[in-house]
Amino acid sequence: MRQLAGTQAGRAYLRSEVEGELQAIFSRSQATAEAYGPHFSRLWNLASRRVRGGKFVRPLLLLETYDALRRSADSIPNSRSTSQPRGAHARSEVVRIAAAVEALHFAFLLHDDVIDGDFFRRGRPNLIGELAEASRDEARPGGARHWAQTGGILSGNLLLSCAHQVFARAKLPAELKLRLLDVLEHTVFETTAGEFIDVGLSDGVFSADLGTVLEMTGRKTASYTFELPLRAAVILADGSRALENKLSAAGLHLGLAYQLQDDLNSTFGDASVHGKDLYSDLREGKQTAIICFARMSGSWPLIESDFGNPDMSIEAAKYLSDCLRDCGAEDFVRGLIREQVEAFSLVLCAPDSEESVPRTVQDVLFGLLARIDGRQS
Amino acid sequence: MRQLAGTQAGRAYLRSEVEGELQAIFSRSQATAEAYGPHFSRLWNLASRRVRGGKFVRPLLLLETYDALRRSADSIPNSRSTSQPRGAHARSEVVRIAAAVEALHFAFLLHDDVIDGDFFRRGRPNLIGELAEASRDEARPGGARHWAQTGGILSGNLLLSCAHQVFARAKLPAELKLRLLDVLEHTVFETTAGEFIDVGLSDGVFSADLGTVLEMTGRKTASYTFELPLRAAVILADGSRALENKLSAAGLHLGLAYQLQDDLNSTFGDASVHGKDLYSDLREGKQTAIICFARMSGSWPLIESDFGNPDMSIEAAKYLSDCLRDCGAEDFVRGLIREQVEAFSLVLCAPDSEESVPRTVQDVLFGLLARIDGRQS
Repeated sequence: MRQLAGTQAGRAYLRSEVEGELQAIFSRSQATAEAYGPHFSRLWNLASRRVRGGKFVRPLLLLETYDALRRSADSIPNSRSTSQPRGAHARSEVVRIAAAVEALHFAFLLHDDVIDGDFFRRGRPNLIGELAEASRDEARPGGARHWAQTGGILSGNLLLSCAHQVFARAKLPAELKLRLLDVLEHTVFETTAGEFIDVGLSDGVFSADLGTVLEMTGRKTASYTFELPLRAAVILADGSRALENKLSAAGLHLGLAYQLQDDLNSTFGDASVHGKDLYSDLREGKQTAIICFARMSGSWPLIESDFGNPDMSIEAAKYLSDCLRDCGAEDFVRGLIREQVEAFSLVLCAPDSEESVPRTVQDVLFGLLARIDGRQS
Repeated sequence: MRQLAGTQAGRAYLRSEVEGELQAIFSRSQATAEAYGPHFSRLWNLASRRVRGGKFVRPLLLLETYDALRRSADSIPNSRSTSQPRGAHARSEVVRIAAAVEALHFAFLLHDDVIDGDFFRRGRPNLIGELAEASRDEARPGGARHWAQTGGILSGNLLLSCAHQVFARAKLPAELKLRLLDVLEHTVFETTAGEFIDVGLSDGVFSADLGTVLEMTGRKTASYTFELPLRAAVILADGSRALENKLSAAGLHLGLAYQLQDDLNSTFGDASVHGKDLYSDLREGKQTAIICFARMSGSWPLIESDFGNPDMSIEAAKYLSDCLRDCGAEDFVRGLIREQVEAFSLVLCAPDSEESVPRTVQDVLFGLLARIDGRQS
């Protein structure tokens, strides 16, 4: 596999590893789920099929970084004898943790959709939408939606528990296991805090300055999408805490850049590329960095009245988008992204540090950055 | 403490142990929660205060059973040397697991309240109600309730994660730890399936026969309230799988009796004792064993029209309650309870079994049964 590292084919192989592991994790509970009758069994099948069909951004980042760290250790001529981690563990344990990170991602996604009242994601029914559709004819009025949202909360809990169980059962040296549990605990806490702040901003419980919005973004998305896989990779490769902290910092910058780019795509993107999600942030009244900037500008009165109107026409949304571009919000956020990318590069390449990031890992992360940049088109 | 075992004072002591442990668990994350700002910090404080102020039914059952098993081992004259479990562990680990069981209970309770749209429990604001009240003046219209329910989902997730983390970090011999993780996994799965079926019945997604209702009750309530603490106690005392299964079966019967009694209290109880929860099942249209029986009787047309009306007057509810009594539903359910209590006694006292239940443990469980019976008045 070494010659495939970092290529499309290499990632396809890693993806098949993760999918196999998820299959194994879910099939373990399949018989139990079936014993609880057809409705619960359907919920379990829906959830497991969705997780297995994901893009695996997070597990791939974990595995690519882990493999890069192992290659780097192998390539140091005199360190061969120490290249095996203290208390070695099988690579299958690493793949299983990566799979658990994907289960955690879906748990957050499901609860997010329940909280936002979403029955669709990227224009297609999400798990909740599928459940509502399937029980529409049987349920009492309003019952199908309520039951479907209940299914969203409960399947989210099952996936959250599944992630915890995989971490708890990992066959790892005690010290590494504790470090992993610490990271998982921190991630759940931080993501939850980020979500609570995000919803509080939308519900108008407190007002949004740029600092709060960026902090929320870091907590809600960057923490579990980038910091968790990177930290876990370092721990599983038995890397130092200094390296773990450094990659965690790089992950936070990358995550902020990623989310800010996502905001730009939703507000200024090309409808033919981004489909129905274009302008969804404007219709939802989402408090993004774009909106924070616009609120301070003279154009805000033009924007304010329609912002957050769920029934906004495509023309009205296009007008809002133009106003936001004209007032300088787009340029401002592009500037923020550049700052995050620069900070990211600085962390990765700093030569004067306690422990420098191996070249193999730099390649993985700069490769990921390039693919994120590609989303701009 | 031995002379206090099974007494009020003994339970007060165990309660203080659990409370101390919960305090320790929560204070570990207190500083982090505060770093996430005043809103998240309030959520964390609300959740931890609620858990610490609970009745501790489940952790007390675990600790009383564990202590009874240890006393029983001590009292066998020639077994002193083997009375220490294989791979001994500190009693503090047992108390910590008991505290985690209480955190799990509150996680389920919070999500239950979100799913049922409840802002009150037993006539007083629950955590969600408190949150909604606190943000009413700041939020946009509808925002306070939405934000509060989001807080319910998220704090439930934090407590669920907290329970998993405590189990994962328990300092126990590997074999016992795996058995405990199995029980936790099974419990979460089973409780989730029970809740999903319960909500499906209320939402009319499928119809309720008595078998489904009893099965749902066993899964939703008996599993985590009785089976989990009893199984955990046996495992922590390094008891056999035969004893674990036997106490689990006893716990299921006890749990069904407990829930059926709860149904009777809500439908036929004394308003001065049960406060605002009296008739709440009738207003919610809850599918109980009482209703299953009544549906098959000639009185159902008298009951059907008002059943599930949330605005039912106290007089109308009283009339429904009388109809349910007259058609024989109350007697029928009392009969079901008797059957469960008999089955419970049979399991506990069966002399011909592979491993009989120690007398000390029988005392604990019959004591609990007597206290549950006391709830009838």
